[in-house]
Amino acid sequence: MKVPFKVVSGSITAPKGFRAAGVFCDIKRLGTGKGSQKGKKRDIALIISAVPATVAGMFTTNQVCAAPVKVCVERVKGGIAQAIVVNSGNANACTGKQGMKDALEMTSVVADQFHLSKQYVLVGSTGRIGVTMPMENVKSGIKDAAWRVNSTTENANQVAEAIMTSDTKPKQIAVEVQLGGKTVTIGGICKGAGMIQPGMSATGARPAAVPQGLHATMLSFITTDAAIQASVLQVALEEATAQSFNRITVDGDMSTNDTVLVLANALAENDAITSVKSKDFAAFQTALNYVCLELAKMIVRDGEGVSRFVTVRVNGAKTFADADSAARAVANSALVKTSWNGGDPNWGRIIDAIGYSAATVVEEKVDIGYSAPGSKKIILSLKRGQPTKSTFKALCAAVAPKEFDLHINLNVGKAGALMYAADLTEEYVEFNKGDVTDPGSLGG
Amino acid sequence: MKVPFKVVSGSITAPKGFRAAGVFCDIKRLGTGKGSQKGKKRDIALIISAVPATVAGMFTTNQVCAAPVKVCVERVKGGIAQAIVVNSGNANACTGKQGMKDALEMTSVVADQFHLSKQYVLVGSTGRIGVTMPMENVKSGIKDAAWRVNSTTENANQVAEAIMTSDTKPKQIAVEVQLGGKTVTIGGICKGAGMIQPGMSATGARPAAVPQGLHATMLSFITTDAAIQASVLQVALEEATAQSFNRITVDGDMSTNDTVLVLANALAENDAITSVKSKDFAAFQTALNYVCLELAKMIVRDGEGVSRFVTVRVNGAKTFADADSAARAVANSALVKTSWNGGDPNWGRIIDAIGYSAATVVEEKVDIGYSAPGSKKIILSLKRGQPTKSTFKALCAAVAPKEFDLHINLNVGKAGALMYAADLTEEYVEFNKGDVTDPGSLGG
Repeated sequence: MKVPFKVVSGSITAPKGFRAAGVFCDIKRLGTGKGSQKGKKRDIALIISAVPATVAGMFTTNQVCAAPVKVCVERVKGGIAQAIVVNSGNANACTGKQGMKDALEMTSVVADQFHLSKQYVLVGSTGRIGVTMPMENVKSGIKDAAWRVNSTTENANQVAEAIMTSDTKPKQIAVEVQLGGKTVTIGGICKGAGMIQPGMSATGARPAAVPQGLHATMLSFITTDAAIQASVLQVALEEATAQSFNRITVDGDMSTNDTVLVLANALAENDAITSVKSKDFAAFQTALNYVCLELAKMIVRDGEGVSRFVTVRVNGAKTFADADSAARAVANSALVKTSWNGGDPNWGRIIDAIGYSAATVVEEKVDIGYSAPGSKKIILSLKRGQPTKSTFKALCAAVAPKEFDLHINLNVGKAGALMYAADLTEEYVEFNKGDVTDPGSLGG
Repeated sequence: MKVPFKVVSGSITAPKGFRAAGVFCDIKRLGTGKGSQKGKKRDIALIISAVPATVAGMFTTNQVCAAPVKVCVERVKGGIAQAIVVNSGNANACTGKQGMKDALEMTSVVADQFHLSKQYVLVGSTGRIGVTMPMENVKSGIKDAAWRVNSTTENANQVAEAIMTSDTKPKQIAVEVQLGGKTVTIGGICKGAGMIQPGMSATGARPAAVPQGLHATMLSFITTDAAIQASVLQVALEEATAQSFNRITVDGDMSTNDTVLVLANALAENDAITSVKSKDFAAFQTALNYVCLELAKMIVRDGEGVSRFVTVRVNGAKTFADADSAARAVANSALVKTSWNGGDPNWGRIIDAIGYSAATVVEEKVDIGYSAPGSKKIILSLKRGQPTKSTFKALCAAVAPKEFDLHINLNVGKAGALMYAADLTEEYVEFNKGDVTDPGSLGG
């Protein structure tokens, strides 16, 4: 079978016609009065397409959502955008009317620099909540970045760095997919390490199907030179998000700022994708799914203090909602997550979490086991509610690797769901308790 | 106004006609093959009334519930009991048919020792899940305890110690209340430190009104010499639990074993309370509420690794369910709890958690503030969604004490709810990740 896409180097500047830059304008220091910033970490970023692009977006369903999210929700409805400005160090959340004014001004400054309609400029922010944006710095930072935009890989790196907060490394990917004889490229970056359990929807409103009660700030910006209608692109992004960003959790806290944006500028000159039923749509969807999933997994692997990456696979549930609830209960249980940290195959804590989830659970039917990532060779610790003959040593060996899969079969139905989850470590607590003598160290 | 009750010394042996004992029978060591038990911590306990008593109970709503819980749910329906046997070190949960056989045998051994109907004997367990009970030790332990039962305060202490797992101290209280000229005494003990967010109901079934998705094992045993009908006692216990044990969280994990039992043996010779409308019922309820609330708070204060005790008070919600959801979201947020640990008045994380709760929230209406425990002198950090002029230093001072109240007003309705919550510390993680080279160190 032909591989539908291939991974290539670079990220958001890999598709034709995209330029980017990330610069330092000292947002964090000014935002909190003192700051702990070592050196000059880039904190403002610009992404711009040479021509107007179709756009799609997914946004936090948190009822308390940041000003930049509100701006994007409205502008994405228009279906066209050309630039994205992003800052780290300040979430511009819970900043009231001033926050909205500041978010709009950020887009206006970009529009002025490039002679665009400000309606075509989107904005994202991540950082501490409740602090007004240091706009003088932000404005000069945007102007600086506007001077520097370029299509080099180095410039894409700058942007991936500029959107980082507690991330330890930039997160980037690009793929190429053939659509009707044309090479289409999709590039993406993301950030996120704590306050991570996104539950995004297209409008920020809560659809019944989006599980609630999750994540931390994650931002992802994806560019492509595909020609694809905005409404079709939105369908593709919703599907891609549902199986990637909305399936991850680091600490179970859903942020006020979670945002995914895709710009598609048509410069690959493929026949425009105008229907979800076309063959090209399927290929594009497959590639976009891969981009989003790889980015989402990078967030969990780089989660604050994370030492283990666990894929929680629930099957045999009565409904998807049941499978989802069981998977999230396990993925967010403090006791399960600390046992993962300790390399302890503690299935008792796992079945306890399943039992208090909203899923229908019959103790005597539950199977619990472990495997290497993606492997079907499962070592069971519990079979139909009874401990198996697997030795403690063998189970410890199964959960010792940095990455493993946890398999849960409720055996009461046919629905399944999975979550990409992380352990809970002393380092997470140490990092997030911060240092009140140094307010700059205090996160989102 | 006359104080309706007074605190007295002692606990479960303070009411007339109750004897108790706690002994060591090495349950933990045998249960896990190696064990880390230092010294000989008491691990089996007996409580017995001189005469049959009316009984009431509240039980975990976890769908995966331990054998002793199943036994109690059935026997409490009969309305009469005379003895309770409890072990620590092994939860007897997820132990299948053997576990049920063992739980029943524990009650039979007690019945034999005291020539009781085994239907009058209740049983509780707490400890590691999924390990079969070491019944030879348990049986000899019960017989040993049966020899030693006595009504001294020292014997009550033994029981409070014997039910401990990760608790650092025994938890006990007793009060006296005057009912129709007779002095009625209520004594209680409890245990619990991790896997704590109970959501108990009278039958273990999930009523819509019991919030789900919570706790860790907590056990509480309450004795009284009051004369009170079993059905009326059940009403009183449900009310008392709703405002105490069901309002606490340490780590958000609901246990398979949560149990509260009350025995009332009528030896105080008060006129039997046969209606919830009587004046004596109101006085009894007030005293029982106090006993349960003080015991519940002891659990949170002694929670695993806990350094701060926070009362989360949500008001102005549209419904109680909304207030409850917002309070639990805040009380269980990893980011909020780590900020409490750091002494950081991080209202951004608090409003983030409120925003992703199931409560209806309008950002522009939310007030957030702090006070000393029970004080109405609130320092606001957020007023109608806007940061106040309170300085960072003043807010830090408000959250520096070991105990404080967090006040949240959603200002969209009239309903309220509170939660007694704890911070999340490195010590919690260190304790719960355990040491797989020493399985005896691995908790529930």
